[in-house]
Order: sequence, then structure tokens, then C-alpha cells
Amino acid sequence: MTQSKLLVGIDIGGTKTAVVLSHQPPEVLARAEFATLPAKGPQQSLNQIKKSVRELLAEKEWEPGAVMRIGVSCGGPLDRVQGIIQSPPNLPTWENIPLKSILEDEFKVECLVENDANAGAVAEHRFGAGQGCQSMVFLTMGTGLGAGIITDGRLYRGANDLAGEIGHVRLTRSGPIGHNKAGSAEGWASGGGMAQLAAQSVAEAQRKGKKSLLADHIRTGKPITAREVGAAARKGDVVAIEILRSTGERLGEVLAILTDVLNPERIVVGGLAMRLGDFLLEPARRVMQREALPQTASVCQVVPAALGESIGDVAALAVAMGI
Amino acid sequence: MTQSKLLVGIDIGGTKTAVVLSHQPPEVLARAEFATLPAKGPQQSLNQIKKSVRELLAEKEWEPGAVMRIGVSCGGPLDRVQGIIQSPPNLPTWENIPLKSILEDEFKVECLVENDANAGAVAEHRFGAGQGCQSMVFLTMGTGLGAGIITDGRLYRGANDLAGEIGHVRLTRSGPIGHNKAGSAEGWASGGGMAQLAAQSVAEAQRKGKKSLLADHIRTGKPITAREVGAAARKGDVVAIEILRSTGERLGEVLAILTDVLNPERIVVGGLAMRLGDFLLEPARRVMQREALPQTASVCQVVPAALGESIGDVAALAVAMGI
Repeated sequence: MTQSKLLVGIDIGGTKTAVVLSHQPPEVLARAEFATLPAKGPQQSLNQIKKSVRELLAEKEWEPGAVMRIGVSCGGPLDRVQGIIQSPPNLPTWENIPLKSILEDEFKVECLVENDANAGAVAEHRFGAGQGCQSMVFLTMGTGLGAGIITDGRLYRGANDLAGEIGHVRLTRSGPIGHNKAGSAEGWASGGGMAQLAAQSVAEAQRKGKKSLLADHIRTGKPITAREVGAAARKGDVVAIEILRSTGERLGEVLAILTDVLNPERIVVGGLAMRLGDFLLEPARRVMQREALPQTASVCQVVPAALGESIGDVAALAVAMGI
Repeated sequence: MTQSKLLVGIDIGGTKTAVVLSHQPPEVLARAEFATLPAKGPQQSLNQIKKSVRELLAEKEWEPGAVMRIGVSCGGPLDRVQGIIQSPPNLPTWENIPLKSILEDEFKVECLVENDANAGAVAEHRFGAGQGCQSMVFLTMGTGLGAGIITDGRLYRGANDLAGEIGHVRLTRSGPIGHNKAGSAEGWASGGGMAQLAAQSVAEAQRKGKKSLLADHIRTGKPITAREVGAAARKGDVVAIEILRSTGERLGEVLAILTDVLNPERIVVGGLAMRLGDFLLEPARRVMQREALPQTASVCQVVPAALGESIGDVAALAVAMGI
């Protein structure tokens, strides 16, 4: 095995950070994971990242000199060229962190940084559900809603790396808030939006005397997560199924916009759609077929992302490979 | 001058067809124009196209063998690869016309066919207001509303040549009809949409006793054209100015969607925006700045198309050059 081709991938999320080593992505040779804890500021995480890289290399008996490149996938906004993390919503204390130069100084090797939606798009395009597509959109539906766009077989970043901000596009004059905008696509079709809708729906169900497995949240005041809505729906909870149907229909409106503007061969939906599957995707596809031009909708497949829980690892490695 | 580099451009519109010759686009060496008259069927136009090409060549004393390639710019839907015109809305009698093979049989030279929004985008990118841009959208606002998209310096066509169908994207639940869809971007922000809005606005102004230069249309029943609204606005007609402001604001919503999804360096607006200028573009830019992400809106210039009335000629020649 050629030691000089060793790649390091670092996936920095609001909850956890993963560090992985690979000779040949998507294969992962060694992996470490720890809590990001953004509330404690960036320094602790930065130290932990450096320590994890050194420990993984030592564990496999490699020298730091064996690393060919480091790739970082992180939430935006970020300055990709300078490699500076600019206070993403999920890492509020990370203000203007020059991650590229920190890691290049530490390991004396090139470090590339990319936002997670773009890195995820390339990962799914190269190794997942988008393989072989010339035109593809990766729609990532987590707490927020974002997209990475592949045109003519390559990542399309736009003028300043912000292409794919579909979460900010307006669906209605007013409505749930997402991306700081009421009625936006992120307000209607994201984990955050679903939590807002769930709170309303469960309260309304209770007023009407309808039973729901989610009703406890009204009593405790604890926010309802997308995961809990999914679990309740799988048990046949009518209120939960209705929440997913409604969110899925809004997702379908988003798919229709992407289809008419970009005419992609495939839209790969990651995040919640992977876990919730047809509870979301069936209504989404139905609305997309109704809303989009028949000629664009008929050629566009809508599929869940294929990389599953490993998408963050593979996305970071895709950055290390070079996008 | 190398005779073998002679290009023929054919721009087929719903009203007129132009045939041009060029050695070096955008320069036009010879030109013929005639009414398309789609109501009379395609045959007469096809004969006239062939005749015009032969006459222009004869006029300049060139042999048909001197032509290197023929380029056709035409309204969609069309099959670009086969070169078949598939009944565009502005050429309703042109059903599955195999234009590529008709012209190749006639002139024994390669013929390329492209839809007019894409050809216009390339023309403005190569020779007009989009020069030097890596990412650009050409938004063409005529009777309808369509777009051609440049990503990473090249035309992006999508899975089946339909990328850029922004006119079909929904702005509101209901509203004026465009692209067969009530409340669509084309319904709100196109010449056709403006005519619908103008009819309402002028009727309402009359009911309220407000004067307008456009009021005669109520009496005669004649539809109000965008050109007439523009002329009245230039004379200070308050009703006309308000129609343009309202259409411009909807155009701004369209620009915001394009900006957030595509993050282009520049949006070049052709058609009505060239003639109506800041009557449309001032409110459009204002709404775009409000509706789009500040980080995408701040880097995106919105400018009128630069090729003016020659855009159709240059678009057809861009197709002949190869896109």
C-alpha cells in the first residue's frame, strides 16, 4: 500500500466531529469520533481534531508525513479558498476560525475545506446514489435544508460558493420560519420546520380529543424531534403520519422548483429522508409530479441518499481527494 | 477571408424569421428577414429559409460549399440532438419538423439546433452583457419567461435540455396564468402576464375615474401590449408606471429564486427589460435584495441584455459556431 496516498477526512458537525483515514475512499481504515460541543468554543475541538489525527496515525503505525492531503467538511458559511469557518449556525462560537492554516501548520500538508452540502453532493455523486449522473442535486434535509448541485458531472459552486441555498427560497408569503425567513422552503421542509409543525399539530389533535403517541410533549413542553415523529408514524400514529405527509408535500414543492430550474437526472435526498423514506418521499414525489413541468419531472428520479450514516466521513474524504 | 469558415444563422421566432451569414460572429455579413406566419403551416417558412440562404450566398458570390455549419435558434420544446422542432407555443403548426435533416439534405453541411433561451444565453455570454462570467443566467422576458444558464463558463442544459424553465415555477397559489399554470413566474413576470395585469389595472382605474393613456383599450377591447405600457409610462402615465412597478417586483422574486439556487455572478435580462429598463429593473433589484440571501444578492449584478435587437441573429450564429 502506498503510504503517500493516505488521506485524512474531518467532518465537523454541530453535534459530533469525526476524523477518518483512508487510502481509497469510500473505504475507511481508521476512525475517531467525539462530541463537538460548540458551546465550549472552538479551541477544545481543534485540539481534539489534531490529537485524533495523531492517534489514528500512531495506531496504524503511519508517520504524519504519509498524509497526502486533509479534507474538511463543515457547515457554511465558510471561506473555501482561505479555509476559514465563518460562524455557521450549528457552530455559533466558531467565528472566523482559520482552519486550513491551523491544520497545514500542524501537519505540513495541504488542507482543503468545503461546505457540507457541497461535500455531501460530491460524496453521493462519486460513491452513492448519484453515481453516473451528469446532472444531480443533493438535497440535505436535517435541522436545515440545503443543496449541492452537480452540473455536467462536476460540483457547481456559484459565484461565492453559495449555490444551492434552496432553503432560503420562499414557498409562501408567511409560515414557519427557516433560514431567518417565514414561509421559506427551510421553514416548511426541514427538521426544524417539522418540529414547528409537529408542535402545532399535536396541540390541535389534543384540543380535538385525538390520541397521539406524541401527546406527552405537550405536557412536558419538550420539543418534538423528527426522529420521534418518524418512530410514532412507524407505529401507525395518525397525527405523526399526517405531519410527515404535510412536510413531504412541501418537500415536493421544493423538488419541483429544483426540477424546473435545473432539470436534473436525479435528486438525491439525504438526512431525514434517508430515515423516514416513503413517509416523506411518497407525498414529495406526488406533489413534484403535479407542480413541475411534465417534461422535467418525468426524467427526474427522486431517491434517498445511499451513503447512510457514513455520508459525513465520505464527504470529508471526497474533499481530501480533491473536488 | 477563408470561405470555408462561413456560418449560417437562422433565428426562427413566432413573428419573424431571420437568416444571417457571418465569418466571425457577432459580425453579420448579409441578412434576410421575413414573416414566419406559423398559421400558414411550416412549409412556406421552410421554403423561404432555404431560398433566403441561397439568395444571400448568391448575393455575396459564395458557393453553398463555402458554408461550414448552419445554426438554428428556435423556441422549445425541441429535440436538440435529432434537430426536431416539437410544436413550440409560438409555432403551433410546427409539429415534429425534422429541421436538422431538412437543412442538412438541402445544403450538405452540418446543422445544429438549440432552443432560443439557451442560444441567447450563449450569445450574451460570448458577445454581450455576460462576457467574462463563470456563472450567469440569461433571463428572457418576452411573451413568456425562460432562462438559459451558464455554469463554470459553459451552457448548462440539464438532463433533457430543459434547464432554466423558471417561468413554470410557482410564485403564488393562484394568480395570472403563464406556462399553463396560475400563479407561475411566467404568469406574473412576462409580457403575457403584464397584458393580463394591464387589462385589470386599466379597467379598475377607469372605474375609479383615474385617467390613463391606456384607457382606449377598454373601449376597443384590444389587448394592451407591453410596448404600449412602456410608451405610456415614458409619458408619465401613473397607471402604466404602476403596472411596470408591479411586474418588476414580481421579476425581483424570480431573480431572488435564481440567485439563491444558482448564486450567479450576473443575471442578464433580455426582452422587455431591454426596452423598459429601470421601469422594470429598479423594482426588480429592490425586491431581489430583500428576498434573496444577502450573501448571494450582494455579489449578483442584474443588467439588461446588451445585444439589443440583434440578439436573435447572434444567438443563431452562436449555435452555428458550436456551443
